[in-house]
Amino acid sequence: MEHSRRIGAVRRKLTRSGLTGLLVTHLPDVRYLCGFTGSSAALAITRRCARLFTDGRYRAQAAEEVQAAEIDIVNRTAAVAAVEWVAAQAGVESVGFEAARTTVADLARWRDALPARLRRTLLTPLPAPPVESLRLVKDDDELAILREAALIGCHLFDHILGFVRPGLREVEVAAELEHAARLAGAEGMSFETIVASGERSALPHGRATEARLPRRGFLTLDFGIIHKGYCSDMTRTVHFGSPRAEERAAYEAVLEAQAAAVEAVEAGARCGEVDEAARSVLRRAGLAEAFSHSTGHGVGLEIHEMPRIASGQTARLAAGMVVTIEPGVYLPGQFGIRIEDMVAVTRTGGEILTPAPKALIEL
Amino acid sequence: MEHSRRIGAVRRKLTRSGLTGLLVTHLPDVRYLCGFTGSSAALAITRRCARLFTDGRYRAQAAEEVQAAEIDIVNRTAAVAAVEWVAAQAGVESVGFEAARTTVADLARWRDALPARLRRTLLTPLPAPPVESLRLVKDDDELAILREAALIGCHLFDHILGFVRPGLREVEVAAELEHAARLAGAEGMSFETIVASGERSALPHGRATEARLPRRGFLTLDFGIIHKGYCSDMTRTVHFGSPRAEERAAYEAVLEAQAAAVEAVEAGARCGEVDEAARSVLRRAGLAEAFSHSTGHGVGLEIHEMPRIASGQTARLAAGMVVTIEPGVYLPGQFGIRIEDMVAVTRTGGEILTPAPKALIEL
Repeated sequence: MEHSRRIGAVRRKLTRSGLTGLLVTHLPDVRYLCGFTGSSAALAITRRCARLFTDGRYRAQAAEEVQAAEIDIVNRTAAVAAVEWVAAQAGVESVGFEAARTTVADLARWRDALPARLRRTLLTPLPAPPVESLRLVKDDDELAILREAALIGCHLFDHILGFVRPGLREVEVAAELEHAARLAGAEGMSFETIVASGERSALPHGRATEARLPRRGFLTLDFGIIHKGYCSDMTRTVHFGSPRAEERAAYEAVLEAQAAAVEAVEAGARCGEVDEAARSVLRRAGLAEAFSHSTGHGVGLEIHEMPRIASGQTARLAAGMVVTIEPGVYLPGQFGIRIEDMVAVTRTGGEILTPAPKALIEL
Repeated sequence: MEHSRRIGAVRRKLTRSGLTGLLVTHLPDVRYLCGFTGSSAALAITRRCARLFTDGRYRAQAAEEVQAAEIDIVNRTAAVAAVEWVAAQAGVESVGFEAARTTVADLARWRDALPARLRRTLLTPLPAPPVESLRLVKDDDELAILREAALIGCHLFDHILGFVRPGLREVEVAAELEHAARLAGAEGMSFETIVASGERSALPHGRATEARLPRRGFLTLDFGIIHKGYCSDMTRTVHFGSPRAEERAAYEAVLEAQAAAVEAVEAGARCGEVDEAARSVLRRAGLAEAFSHSTGHGVGLEIHEMPRIASGQTARLAAGMVVTIEPGVYLPGQFGIRIEDMVAVTRTGGEILTPAPKALIEL
């Protein structure tokens, strides 16, 4: 049972940290640990027990989704109820919470709910995310879902290739893509769809506008869907008409940079080395300045997860991580190009989850 | 100039609170006060100066959008730069920040950026949202945009009435609605589109599923778009085939409750009284238990804003507030009905911003 195994991993981590409990309030973490998908919940984990707190709206849903934790339906804020419960457990002396996910107001409210003798000592802010670091390495169930999500993305790209033509507005392309995603069963888009055409392709995050697709020029599509709670993410850049020599050269440089970074992916490689694999190709092509962002990021229940594939990152990849590899070049006033795959890290290399074609497509 | 006026209102509020500065990090608040729409920013306001901090990606955009504040392009976290700047201003002794929007980790980082002599005294957590309370009352520019947003929503409802038919999947209805919204120029949907048909109409927040629209039964559509940054929100419930007597009676009760609450809207009315106007109608109809949520909420740059139109709320409406009025009844295993308008509060009553028909539509 995956959820019990994951909660077990949290417990081992607690023990190593000298904590006797953990308060989990970030909903993707709650979902990861016990399967609950409702919009209001807190999960308390002690050495002996895991208990989910939510409200009456979710009684039936929690009973259906959650096996690895006890369920407590409460009529007050879930996290406050969780704090009160954990404070009452025998042997629980220090309970961690994620400092980066807890507001100053929440912490004050939690402390107010504690008996005076525990107010200063029970709750321990954790500077590093305690659950997201477990979510870094995907298990087989997660990899299977991420493969499906990525393939749905590839089918959508294929669909939209048959739809785009000069004169359409960018928003029409985004609308068609999102419509097709819905019909393909996506639960939603994993981020705001990027459709950037012509000169606008030089914007790394060009949201779809009323601009019309050009007779000649690039079109960058960067989009993702949510499937069984997991995010896909891919980018392809295609060209209307015949590219000029410098456009073709820049495309080939990005493609080579992307392939080099994918090639650098394997268990044990440092994230900064993978970034450098892409960056050095673009540097040799005289495009170092034009590659103005990092090479990639982890992806899973959230669209941006650890690790960061960026310059100087010394963290090492491990088998089961899923990352994006997405170098790009952006020449303001001229054009831009980005190519992005999702890649699962394996012991000996990387498995591309988004097998849509990458050779330059001329439409 | 609206932004200067709004920043002036913040300053008057600061003075009343004995504060010499305010740190604004919630992006809808930043947008409201200075017009900046980028995804990373902090705004520092002192008695003499307002200064926006953002990064190099937004250099051109900030220069174009922001007139009422100085602009500082920084290569570190915007809020940290803002804290450092404000600490260096003469005469600034206590700077408020919103406790409910600031994480424990952020506050630690901000304090670390301060000189030791200011670390304990400069930053003051504010329990109440300092800017959202100003955003409660919309000015004429905002009301004009909200009117437009609501009318786009009404046109979409009209469009979708011509699309829905028994046998379609709920997700196809959501896809069509969102597609049409994109083509109508919406920047996005303001929340996840609710399409709940047949027995599923008894779920107050039934997201669109693979379920097929019934030959006989209700269909609830609850959706909103984003237009110029502002949210619309409306719900209509229609019926396929001829409703049974109890379905018709329940619909009429919800419609009467909705009209009663709209009627109760006027400057000076307490929010709890507006809620009670709807609730008492449903109580008389024997449907008190079936109305399981509050009557409405404010709407503006965010889909859920103050005030809450709920039982026991003693806050008073003021001219310029925009609220939803959305009573509903939910009979699990049978059916549900909700009718929702956006209503602008005026001195003498309420102006319905969503004039789509509410009499029961049989399709």
